[in-house]
Amino acid sequence: MTTQVVAPPLAYGPPISLEAASRVAEAARAHAQANGWAMVIAVTDAGGHLVLLLRMDHAAHGSVEVAQRKAATAAAFKRTTKGFEETLATGGATLRLLSMHNAILMDGGVPLIENGKLIGAIGVSGMHPTQDGQTAEAGARVVNG
Amino acid sequence: MTTQVVAPPLAYGPPISLEAASRVAEAARAHAQANGWAMVIAVTDAGGHLVLLLRMDHAAHGSVEVAQRKAATAAAFKRTTKGFEETLATGGATLRLLSMHNAILMDGGVPLIENGKLIGAIGVSGMHPTQDGQTAEAGARVVNG
Amino acid sequence: MTTQVVAPPLAYGPPISLEAASRVAEAARAHAQANGWAMVIAVTDAGGHLVLLLRMDHAAHGSVEVAQRKAATAAAFKRTTKGFEETLATGGATLRLLSMHNAILMDGGVPLIENGKLIGAIGVSGMHPTQDGQTAEAGARVVNG
Amino acid sequence: MTTQVVAPPLAYGPPISLEAASRVAEAARAHAQANGWAMVIAVTDAGGHLVLLLRMDHAAHGSVEVAQRKAATAAAFKRTTKGFEETLATGGATLRLLSMHNAILMDGGVPLIENGKLIGAIGVSGMHPTQDGQTAEAGARVVNG
Repeated sequence: MTTQVVAPPLAYGPPISLEAASRVAEAARAHAQANGWAMVIAVTDAGGHLVLLLRMDHAAHGSVEVAQRKAATAAAFKRTTKGFEETLATGGATLRLLSMHNAILMDGGVPLIENGKLIGAIGVSGMHPTQDGQTAEAGARVVNG
Repeated sequence: MTTQVVAPPLAYGPPISLEAASRVAEAARAHAQANGWAMVIAVTDAGGHLVLLLRMDHAAHGSVEVAQRKAATAAAFKRTTKGFEETLATGGATLRLLSMHNAILMDGGVPLIENGKLIGAIGVSGMHPTQDGQTAEAGARVVNG
Repeated sequence: MTTQVVAPPLAYGPPISLEAASRVAEAARAHAQANGWAMVIAVTDAGGHLVLLLRMDHAAHGSVEVAQRKAATAAAFKRTTKGFEETLATGGATLRLLSMHNAILMDGGVPLIENGKLIGAIGVSGMHPTQDGQTAEAGARVVNG
Repeated sequence: MTTQVVAPPLAYGPPISLEAASRVAEAARAHAQANGWAMVIAVTDAGGHLVLLLRMDHAAHGSVEVAQRKAATAAAFKRTTKGFEETLATGGATLRLLSMHNAILMDGGVPLIENGKLIGAIGVSGMHPTQDGQTAEAGARVVNG
């Protein structure tokens, strides 16, 4: 018989600085630009409040809210929104996630973790969710390593 | 010919006291702590208004809204949110439930019933919905017996 | 000619623990109980998300939202809501504050500060705003000293 | 008999580019930094949708919504929010402005006008509204000349 081990939960840390948020957003933007993608990139603190948002030229303005909500969801639930998307895709009971109004269930939101603490999150929107997710990860790597 | 019997509808009773809400929440917290789960526990009155809410250390802050809505849904519709979740999981026409914006369709919300009257509800969020539901039931048993 | 010195702004710190929030709320509740006041007491983290809320028996349920918003306002703007109330009372241009929808301009919200950082806030509602403010201060002293 | 001349209404133009929005925001930030002010600076397009937002370190997170609403109000009504504030300050019937929920009546929101067309707006929040307004003007001058 194995003992079930529960991982220690991820703690919320101090808010990400504007300087760090700028480096995260720039890495995401560089990834987007290299691919010719017009995107909105949002970085929030651990509380889900914006620290930086930029909309590349010709990105749809509907993506502003989506990018913000992806970052806020990643901060609020301490996980990637890709995880939510994949769970939802299995169908059946997981449709319940759609009734959680403070979560967007779409790839593109990634927590930012420093010294083992969540200090913020990045959210990206504008292309296919998979591309949004890649771009968010490109930004997150600046902090998450 | 049989007579169709409709159960008398559950009446709303007087609001749960803070003392009783505290005992409910403590039982839920003890269950969570014994399992190493970081959770948000909410207790509302029959009107769906908070009487007590506590967020255990390191629980995701997104769970605050989810726990509240689970309790409020259980009070508003006089049923467990697990019931809604199970109905939704059958698919088809039951997807209509997702358009009921004042209901969260996810295990973890349980009515509190005393002397045959609904006096409040408990909502729990933070882990898998099944674990949230177990924890809510552990709290509800203090009142529901 | 004097040099105008701008005080270094108050930093946001790590979230208040449930244990500390409980001590804050208990001190506020003791103050309320000693005066025979039925109140709602809310404690949030630095991001304005609830850590603890309790409604004393017979407190009006409308006070649940008011107490939460007082705490959230104190965290969001790093100041007491009494300050907002006093500014508004001077009339004239200060009426502009009423158009700030994310602020409640009523005594009873106080930041919680530890080691020079804002780690949360307390909000109290249920009686006259002055009494709400006194009760919030009674709670805040546990952390603020 | 004189002829009453009505000025041609200000037309909405094409959306401000991210490059121009960055220059506007940087000028505002330089003004804030020179004064030691921690502020949130938002730039929207003509539709009131964010193009760029940055929160300087230690700016209150409540200022995020306020800065956004100042910019959005300036774009939505094609005027400075200072104008609304001054009208409100005259009292009496002007209190009606407070019932316009899509307007914040507080200095710090300024339209951005290029070739006689409104292409966006800047909103600043974090200090006294007069200082917010000065900072927004410092940014707006980059475009408005």
